Amino acid sequence: MTEILLRQDEGGIATLTLNTPASLNALSDAMLDALSTSFEALAEDGSIRVIVLRGAGKAFCAGHDLKEMQAARAAPDRGAAYFADLFARCGALMQQIPRLPQPVIAEVHGIATAAGCQLVASCDMAVAAEGTRFGVNGVNIGLFCSTPMVALSRNLPRKQAFELLTTGAFLDAARARELGLVNRVVPQEALAQETRALAETVAAKLTAAVKIGKRAFYEQLEMDLAGAYAHTAEVMAENMLWRDTEEGIAAFLEKRKPDWSL
Amino acid sequence: MTEILLRQDEGGIATLTLNTPASLNALSDAMLDALSTSFEALAEDGSIRVIVLRGAGKAFCAGHDLKEMQAARAAPDRGAAYFADLFARCGALMQQIPRLPQPVIAEVHGIATAAGCQLVASCDMAVAAEGTRFGVNGVNIGLFCSTPMVALSRNLPRKQAFELLTTGAFLDAARARELGLVNRVVPQEALAQETRALAETVAAKLTAAVKIGKRAFYEQLEMDLAGAYAHTAEVMAENMLWRDTEEGIAAFLEKRKPDWSL
Amino acid sequence: MTEILLRQDEGGIATLTLNTPASLNALSDAMLDALSTSFEALAEDGSIRVIVLRGAGKAFCAGHDLKEMQAARAAPDRGAAYFADLFARCGALMQQIPRLPQPVIAEVHGIATAAGCQLVASCDMAVAAEGTRFGVNGVNIGLFCSTPMVALSRNLPRKQAFELLTTGAFLDAARARELGLVNRVVPQEALAQETRALAETVAAKLTAAVKIGKRAFYEQLEMDLAGAYAHTAEVMAENMLWRDTEEGIAAFLEKRKPDWSL
Repeated sequence: MTEILLRQDEGGIATLTLNTPASLNALSDAMLDALSTSFEALAEDGSIRVIVLRGAGKAFCAGHDLKEMQAARAAPDRGAAYFADLFARCGALMQQIPRLPQPVIAEVHGIATAAGCQLVASCDMAVAAEGTRFGVNGVNIGLFCSTPMVALSRNLPRKQAFELLTTGAFLDAARARELGLVNRVVPQEALAQETRALAETVAAKLTAAVKIGKRAFYEQLEMDLAGAYAHTAEVMAENMLWRDTEEGIAAFLEKRKPDWSL
Repeated sequence: MTEILLRQDEGGIATLTLNTPASLNALSDAMLDALSTSFEALAEDGSIRVIVLRGAGKAFCAGHDLKEMQAARAAPDRGAAYFADLFARCGALMQQIPRLPQPVIAEVHGIATAAGCQLVASCDMAVAAEGTRFGVNGVNIGLFCSTPMVALSRNLPRKQAFELLTTGAFLDAARARELGLVNRVVPQEALAQETRALAETVAAKLTAAVKIGKRAFYEQLEMDLAGAYAHTAEVMAENMLWRDTEEGIAAFLEKRKPDWSL
Repeated sequence: MTEILLRQDEGGIATLTLNTPASLNALSDAMLDALSTSFEALAEDGSIRVIVLRGAGKAFCAGHDLKEMQAARAAPDRGAAYFADLFARCGALMQQIPRLPQPVIAEVHGIATAAGCQLVASCDMAVAAEGTRFGVNGVNIGLFCSTPMVALSRNLPRKQAFELLTTGAFLDAARARELGLVNRVVPQEALAQETRALAETVAAKLTAAVKIGKRAFYEQLEMDLAGAYAHTAEVMAENMLWRDTEEGIAAFLEKRKPDWSL
């Protein structure tokens, strides 16, 4: 039996691979559950400093599992309870990503549509292969991408997000970078290597500093300016008191490498 | 007698034309009232799926009617009550646009300045002709574009919005697209056709899905992440229960066109 | 004795020059104090309409004074009280800039890193020399740029801000303009002149209008749409009642220059 979500750890970097290529790595109940469980384990795993999320086969992820969703209509309530639960679970999963202590990088190729595009938008960073197509195209089948737009509209300017949502059109990788949805666009053959290089760069930093910073990043985004400064001033003062930070600054002033036990 | 605001319906798309070209389609009291009344009627009109807003003559809209505003100074209070009422009415009009059930596309040419630029920023999407100039240039005559900046600063990055507001400089169409103020820039001679094509694309979607999605789009933008997910999860679960959405998904899985009665 | 912060006034424009080039204009306690005191004086100075902030020597500003910070560890509490106070003072300084009645333009060259980058992000506008490098690279020495990210993440798209913060990489001037961190990029030899031209453009506007507008700009950014419109409608109605605004509009309608006593 093949596992639907693979995890490979190397050098402090965990790579999660969505592994149901026949369904374009659809976010089925099983996949949502596997991702959530895996994220919970990673949150507690002190050996992992960065997470990479990728898809096996032709695509990153094509969104929800439509066959499974249609099957739920056989219930006496025509699926009402299932759908409510499904979107609540999916939303909770997407919110796990900014709450993970480790940065999460989406490694995207092929297509990333609907909840698959939401997954990219929910990651902290994203590297895309040239030719990747993004879309929140549920509107094409009568199902507006209402939950994906939460993440999308926090990545893109307003009018451009609205256009994607109501036209169901694809966004190419170069324009996705211009608009803010991805950080880098690289040739398909260099995708894994370039994503790895970004992950290694972040993994080489002081883990505790990245962790305290990521957490504060999302917290302060939802505060007003005065609140954001009050909060982050405390975070920095705490950060200064760490032994590794004292060593990092000393090393910089002495023009040598810091002696950190990552 | 010529009507100051024309409405033409075709194929589920209502085109509103600001029709006082001699005043560059200024937002006079009469024009504000005509737009507001027209939007109220459109909000109730189930036959209209998309709205296009354009201007007759050389320009889209040059903002408020300055002559009318100066005339109001003849009142005993030197216009104080009139001005308070004018900006309240104008702000209410601008807020009607995101609240309309139908997407509203600005078809912009010539100039869009002050409240005319605000009108573009307030629309859900915008298509501009090459050569269009945008500005929030009230500062040039001593009247800072304080209400236009509400819409503008929700479309553009902060420093770029600040520059436009305090320099009174024009923004060209290409840069307006880069910054997020418009979706597409097309040759002047293709403006009507390209805007129509965008409108038709959206009009061909399931109307109820676009409607529920547009409403949720603006609602969730003003919520924090958890609140936005809680709200949109309910919206999607409701969307799933519609007969047309069931048909849309079935058609997609069966690789055929959905049978919707738009 | 050389002053660490120079101020030169000319034509209603105050130019503040960070003047400790040997430390790359580090934000030492003395510099933070000098800036804060200078901003307080400028806030009350009716003769100044625009402020330019620049750095002497090779760089704009390289952030906090790390030697001074390390020295504070000698205290019995290992610097805890000092660090808490330092970041509170620095955050208060950064918040003084949007609260100043005059627009503040950063004139940036060389490098602008950590709190130096935060200073650029906190200014209302920024002009950068070609070749300028920006970074929030404290993570490289184990000190995450948590307070700089407050200003940075209100200037840049989310994923791009996150990348800068966690990779510690430099951002070049051209990309900084694309992302929204600076308004203009000009050749090094034209930097002073181009910044001056921008400052003069703004200084030539009606001072009271720029002042009321800047204040409302930041206030409305933190309000929801309805609140923002309610507030700015009042601001515009008040603006309309000024004698100089009446004259500005009259002059425009009569195609002549306004007679303002700036």
